[in-house]
Amino acid sequence: MNRVITIGREFGSGGRELGKRLAELLDCAYYDKEIVEEIAKRTQLAEGYVQQIVEHRSGIFFPITVGRTLHHVHPAGTDYMLKQYTSVYAEQANVLREMAEKSDCIIVGRCADHILKGHDPLRIFVYADMESKIARCRAKSEEDEHLSDKELRKKILAIDKGRAKYYSHYTGKRWGDHSNYDLCVNNYAIPVKECAESLAHILK
Amino acid sequence: MNRVITIGREFGSGGRELGKRLAELLDCAYYDKEIVEEIAKRTQLAEGYVQQIVEHRSGIFFPITVGRTLHHVHPAGTDYMLKQYTSVYAEQANVLREMAEKSDCIIVGRCADHILKGHDPLRIFVYADMESKIARCRAKSEEDEHLSDKELRKKILAIDKGRAKYYSHYTGKRWGDHSNYDLCVNNYAIPVKECAESLAHILK
Repeated sequence: MNRVITIGREFGSGGRELGKRLAELLDCAYYDKEIVEEIAKRTQLAEGYVQQIVEHRSGIFFPITVGRTLHHVHPAGTDYMLKQYTSVYAEQANVLREMAEKSDCIIVGRCADHILKGHDPLRIFVYADMESKIARCRAKSEEDEHLSDKELRKKILAIDKGRAKYYSHYTGKRWGDHSNYDLCVNNYAIPVKECAESLAHILK
Repeated sequence: MNRVITIGREFGSGGRELGKRLAELLDCAYYDKEIVEEIAKRTQLAEGYVQQIVEHRSGIFFPITVGRTLHHVHPAGTDYMLKQYTSVYAEQANVLREMAEKSDCIIVGRCADHILKGHDPLRIFVYADMESKIARCRAKSEEDEHLSDKELRKKILAIDKGRAKYYSHYTGKRWGDHSNYDLCVNNYAIPVKECAESLAHILK
């Protein structure tokens, strides 16, 4: 069985960087956006649209209750949206399973810890203090560069709220709860580089 | 400022072993029972009694509500117990602060992460799967050796419930919530020895 490492992460915590560094050190595949592209190819939808669904930027985000309310107004529309969500998730799960069958790999996000539990993955969750997440976002993204601390804080909290809902919806478990992971690391206290090197050392 | 590492841990997870190994590798002081003994000397109470209070084996465990109810029945008795709890905690906090002033140290349990936050400690939380905690308890303790899985599970859950209450009472925070720690590690997935060596490598 191939080695699978999954990384859940708070927005701006450096989880992607940890994944990439670890993939380099362990010489194994790294997936995040690639998965979405693969899904896009399969579902025959425009990648941007899939990206929007997967990143749950859409206004309607698995609105089980809202969905029912809306049902009276736009039954076809809501059903269509829910079907799209489910289809994207199912495709995504298939792709993840294929990736894990193909080679050792590191997968960031996408409930991979849950979807690939049969592969006995090493499940990592990366988080950080709000202050350092704000600093990281500002340093890494042109889009975030000109936002105030308050605006960035709001953005980070909103994205993580979406991730928590997404995770909880599909896994029935609480996002970020240590019992769902093997290692939860504050990337502010234990820097990404050192963390990746240590993990690689343990895993090699 | 001395380096302080605090370790919170689920019962049977190997947190003490991690602390001891790390203390050896970093050549620094290690405290757990020693602290209790120190407290016992200071409060002039028999060590066994203090141990009982600190380990919260007593039937009355910070019973703020129960305390009030009981107050009508045994006012002196309840007040005395609550006073003892508070006195033990305060003494314990003093001792922890003295230890941290004295030298680099690793402290297991006792809300040290909260009490010593001024020392900017590296805050570790150790946990493990129930199965491996049961196996560990059985291997490490004569007392637990002859308990059934069911009995051991019940014991582990009860002790951890006490720890969670104790932590929450004194810190106002949730025991085991990743946001209160810098590293949460599942000692089943990442074995104690390797974890200690990696941390020592990062911290040296």
